This record gives sequence, structure tokens and C-alpha cells, in this order.
Amino acid sequence: MTRNVAIIGTGHSKFGVRTDVNLQELAWEAIKQALEEANLEQKDIEYYTVGNMGLWSSEELPAPIVGEYSELTPKGTMRVEAACATGSAALRDAYLAVKSGEVDIAMAIGVEQMHQSKTPTVVELLGRAGNYFWEFENFGLTFPGYFALYATAYMNKYGLKEEDLGEIAIKAHHYGSLNPYAHLQKEITMKEYLNSKPVAWPLKLLDCSPITDGAAAIILASEDVAKKITDSPVWILSQGVASGPANISKRNDFTSMETTRYAAEIAYKKAKISKEDAWKYFDVAEVHDCFTIAEIIAYEDLGFAKRGEGVNLAREKQTYIGGKIPVNVDGGLKAKGHPIGATGISMNVTLARQLLYRAPNKHMQAEIKNGMAVAHNLGGTGHYAYVTILSTRRPEYVG
Amino acid sequence: MTRNVAIIGTGHSKFGVRTDVNLQELAWEAIKQALEEANLEQKDIEYYTVGNMGLWSSEELPAPIVGEYSELTPKGTMRVEAACATGSAALRDAYLAVKSGEVDIAMAIGVEQMHQSKTPTVVELLGRAGNYFWEFENFGLTFPGYFALYATAYMNKYGLKEEDLGEIAIKAHHYGSLNPYAHLQKEITMKEYLNSKPVAWPLKLLDCSPITDGAAAIILASEDVAKKITDSPVWILSQGVASGPANISKRNDFTSMETTRYAAEIAYKKAKISKEDAWKYFDVAEVHDCFTIAEIIAYEDLGFAKRGEGVNLAREKQTYIGGKIPVNVDGGLKAKGHPIGATGISMNVTLARQLLYRAPNKHMQAEIKNGMAVAHNLGGTGHYAYVTILSTRRPEYVG
Repeated sequence: MTRNVAIIGTGHSKFGVRTDVNLQELAWEAIKQALEEANLEQKDIEYYTVGNMGLWSSEELPAPIVGEYSELTPKGTMRVEAACATGSAALRDAYLAVKSGEVDIAMAIGVEQMHQSKTPTVVELLGRAGNYFWEFENFGLTFPGYFALYATAYMNKYGLKEEDLGEIAIKAHHYGSLNPYAHLQKEITMKEYLNSKPVAWPLKLLDCSPITDGAAAIILASEDVAKKITDSPVWILSQGVASGPANISKRNDFTSMETTRYAAEIAYKKAKISKEDAWKYFDVAEVHDCFTIAEIIAYEDLGFAKRGEGVNLAREKQTYIGGKIPVNVDGGLKAKGHPIGATGISMNVTLARQLLYRAPNKHMQAEIKNGMAVAHNLGGTGHYAYVTILSTRRPEYVG
Repeated sequence: MTRNVAIIGTGHSKFGVRTDVNLQELAWEAIKQALEEANLEQKDIEYYTVGNMGLWSSEELPAPIVGEYSELTPKGTMRVEAACATGSAALRDAYLAVKSGEVDIAMAIGVEQMHQSKTPTVVELLGRAGNYFWEFENFGLTFPGYFALYATAYMNKYGLKEEDLGEIAIKAHHYGSLNPYAHLQKEITMKEYLNSKPVAWPLKLLDCSPITDGAAAIILASEDVAKKITDSPVWILSQGVASGPANISKRNDFTSMETTRYAAEIAYKKAKISKEDAWKYFDVAEVHDCFTIAEIIAYEDLGFAKRGEGVNLAREKQTYIGGKIPVNVDGGLKAKGHPIGATGISMNVTLARQLLYRAPNKHMQAEIKNGMAVAHNLGGTGHYAYVTILSTRRPEYVG
């Protein structure tokens, strides 16, 4: 009683400081690429979901603004938000629209313009006291401070060293330097990492993803339509979604994200994958490295390593291409950048391209043996988690 | 290849100035009622979508905040926005989640708290220059000013008088005075209407929906599950969605909302209803009367009257209960109130209750002959339109 949904086109803008364009022009950069890849026109898109956090934006209605500029109007739309998982939420809504039979072709667009040439004070707002997104009234912490709690808890329990976090940052910058779409395209050394400015101990500047502008887009189609359009559909095998308590005092453990575990459990169950074997199924993965510690914790929450052993994957460089499981080989949030509304879409664009051997640079192309990949996208500090599993093999089961 | 989705529970808070509660407490008022009506517990809800515009709110992540307080956590969620059609967008996303087979039971919640006891200046912001939502940079108009253009165009083309607009306001207040959930519960006279303060000629204060806080919630279930839970499911027969250009100069006509026409066409086609006969099918309707003129135009765009004849329905009092088609017999946006994120859910709550003879007051209960109703929810000034058709008869067709 269900139908398969495939990715048939992907688009990705240059991530970085994009004061050269406005929001809708930035979105168009990705939308145009996706339409070209799918060999479709705007009129073929029956529905479009726009993911945009937009706190710092003057555009209060980003969805129709993007739709009008890109000529997706008058098709139905909504804007969605799931904090830093906004892009995955956009993908979900478009996926549901196709899976439900309401439409046959839908587009999910993620776009965020965090730098505004017109209102420079908006960027200041991010760091200023009183900005609720960054400083939760409940407990007066900032984002880096929150993740610093996780880092210190992990350090205390499992013996994590700063150099282990450095390995994550170095890997991100290595792949970012190969990715023409990335915000930060320079490699870094361990010395540079250790010397970087402290932000919230033990997190330093080079542990933190940058403030980035960018857009990404994905076109989804039902099986029947996908078959007519492309020889290489990338199927959405399953998606797991979860929410978590905002109140820090309700978190059970600071060495794991329960929201990730809950979402992964749902996604794995639907995909008939066991958590312990998950790393064997996936040729490549994208995880939410808003801060380096988050990547190490994600390794464990997704089953790539046992509890307390995620740090080993970092130390042993097992998440580079050629290792146990390649993770964030597009630069991750750390170097590719983190335009909040676009990140979730960007992750899935990277993975779809990886599965089809279309990575922008051969040195960032993982070996694809099983044809499966997973994207892990966190929102806030565990407020939202979205886990999406992609596959080049047509899903056979009903679910 | 599709499955039917039914409304199995509805909830509605008191609309008004709700500085007695915070956002999550307000949402809970509606969520609790919906759970009780469906005889379900939070753990039965598999997914929840939160509609919230939130510009004036300190809560940047309303979805998990609501989820945590109402104990819907850790289920998956996202926040959605479609300007004043946000509530309908929330309904859509939850509808898609069930229709697609991803979940069997989902909840759509719409909540808006436009008054903030903590930050009184937020309410001032609404009227202040520079607030992008209310004053579009493109053309420097405010919302009432925009709809005043429609009113003057309609007056010019079809001979509308101020008294005709007054009839709409009087009807709204008549039913608002009967609705215990309504913001404004006082009847008004034509004299009071004509004497009300000018806002943007010809629109006066009593032509404009108020600034309201409120929440509403709907629980949806798949057919199999609905049958186990309730004897009186209200089916979502179809939904049509559209977006429109933000740029005023691109509008073809100021006596009609093309976005409404586009969305209605899709909804009617899926429901196998002709536009000319639409009013015969529906026992009761909810239309988007953000301003009185919008209701008259909606009559025509939805097919209740021919072009230029919507004004006749107002003059002849044909949209009261007992008339050609009862419209907004809960007070509409004008008297029930317009908490932006909640309105679309509220409309469908009203209609579901009408279809089941559960209106709060017998004097606001329409006669139900055909078991069908329609909700028309506009976003912005035609940026978004959502048309939702409900039916007590199980949909037989695949679509």
C-alpha cells in the first residue's frame, strides 16, 4: 500500500559568504542544477518544499519568494523548519508528498543566507545575548557551550583527547579542500588545530562549523515516473525522525544523543538493518558535525562503533575513504559549511552523487560496493534528528 | 495505490488575548482536547507537525517546545509555515505522513501567540515600519492597504458598497457571539460598522481580523486505524495547494485571488466536483476573511457565486445558516480571531465538528445534508492558498 520514491536530480550551490546574491538567487543556483541534472523544466515540478530557518533574514515568506524567482509558482508549497535539520525536514515533506500519491514529482529545496549585505547587524545578533536561538533562556548556554558539555562528559568517561577532536577537523578540511562547493577549502594541520582560539573549552574555533550561506536542491519522483526520466534513480529506502526535550536537565546522558538513537532505530528498522551491522551496509555516510565532538558521538549513536569507541575511529583515521566507513567526505559541516536550511539537503545530494560515482573530485569519491548510504542530520542540541537511508537498489518490501 | 485518511479527534483553545499562558501551554489546551475526543494518549501519536509563524515569539523552535510540554516527544516533528495558511500546511504535512503509510496516526497542531506578556514591544512591531511581514519592501504596503486595493478594484468593477462589507462583519460577529472559543463575542450593528475607525480606505477597523492568540489540533488516522477508534471519522477527501507571486505588479486582477482559484481547481478535481456546482455539494464552508473583502472574493474564487456576484450573497444574507451556503458560522477570522499558525487547523476543526453535529452551540450548527465541507485558507496576500475538502462519506476513488 506504498510506493517507492527516488532522487532523480540534485543541485548544490557554492557554499560560503554569498553576499553576491539574494536568497532567491542563491536558491536558484541549486534549483537550476537539479533541473538540468534531471532534464526537467519548472513546469514538471508539481510541489516544492522550502527549508529555511531564516531568523537572520529579511524574507519572512521565503517559500513563495523562492518559488516566484525560480518559476515554480503556482505549485503548492510550504516552508519547513527543524533547526539545523531543516533541510532533512524539507526532504521529508517532499518525500511524503510523492510517497502518498499526492504528486509524482516534487522538489525539496534548502537555502540559508546567514550573511546579509543589507543588515550587517544581523550577523552580530547570532553572538549577542538575548538571541533565543543561540542562548536558550532555560539554561543560559550558547551552542558551543552546550556541545562543550558533551565533549567534557565524553572526555571524562572515555578518555577523549583534544587531538582526537583535531582528527575530525583535519579530515573535514582535507575533504573540504577537494570540494569545489565547500566554504572552507584549505587543509589544516594538528598544530593549527591545537593553536586555534578557544571558544568553549575544550572546543576551539577549529572544532566549530562556520557561518555559511548556501542552497541545495533535490528532485524526487515516484517509481513509475523515475523510470521514464533516469537510468540511475537513487531510492529513499527509509527515513527516521525524532524530537528531543529542549530542557538540558532532562537529558539522560551527555555522551550520546538519544534523539539520534531514536531516529536511527526507526530508519534502520524500516530498512531491515541491524544497528550493529549498520556500518557494513553503508558505503559512505554524512553525519552532523556541527562541532567535532558531535561527529564522534554520531559514530556511536548510528552504530558505526560501540559506546565509547567512536573516538577510536577518529584516532585510527577509519572514517577516511578506504577506512571502516567513509564519513563526511565532502568536508562535512565543518569545512563544506553549515547553511542551516540547506545542510540536510546538501548531505543527501553528496550521498546520491557518491552512490552514482559523481563526486566532484575523484579523491573524494568513496568506493561503492553495497549501494547504500546514510545521512544523519541533527537539529538544535538534539531537538530534532532525521536519519535518511539511500540505496541504488530498488526497495522490494512494503513499508 | 493510496489510502484514506480521517480526522478522528479535534481540539480548540479559547482564542483571544492569552497572556495567561505561554506558547506550549496554549498548544496543550488544544492537544489535550483532541486526545480526549479521540480517546488516545500521547504515546499513540506517531508523528506531529507544528504550524507556527512565530515572528513575534521568543520561541525559535516551537515544535520541540510544544512536543516536550505535551509529551509527544520523542516522536518525529517539524515546524511548518505558510504565512496565514500555516495551519493548513501543518494539516497537509500530517496528512501526507499518514497517506504515505509512514505512520498510521499523526497530529497537526497550529499555535500562535501574538501577544507576549514578556515583550510588549513585539506587538508594536507589527505596526511598525520595517517589519517585513507587514510592510513588503517591494511595494511599501501594509496588509490592510493591500486588501484595500482589492476592495477598491471590486467596488469599481462590480459596484460594491461599504454596507456590503459591513454585512460580512456583522455575520462574523453574530456567529462569534455564539462561539465560546471566539476572541470577539459581541454582536455589532451596521451603524457601529460604518462608524468604525478607518484603517485603509475603504477598510475600517471592523473590516479587519484582530490580533489573536490561540491553538487548535487535529488527529489524523489511516482508514484501518480510524475504524478501530471511532464510529464517526471525517475523511479528508482532497486538498489543493498553490503558491502565488509576491510581487504585486504580477497580479493580473485585483477582484480575484488566482492562488485560491488554482488551489480550488486541484481540490475540486481530486474530489470530482465541478466548480459551478461546488456550493451544492458543501453543507458548510470556512473561507479566509482576514478582511471582509477577502470573504466576498473567496465566494467567487471557490465557485459559490459567479464573478461579480459574490457581493449578492453578502447583501442577501445567503451565507448565514439557512442560506445558499453557510460560511464562517464560527465567527470567521474576523470574530473568532486569527492566530496565524492556528487558523487553518481551526477552520478544519470547525468543519469536522459541523459535519458531526457537534458545533458548540445549536444556533451555529448548519444543517448537514450531503456530509461535505470545504476550508479555504489564504497565506499572505495570495502567496499561498490551501483548499481542503472534508466528507463524512468514505472516499471510494483512488486519488
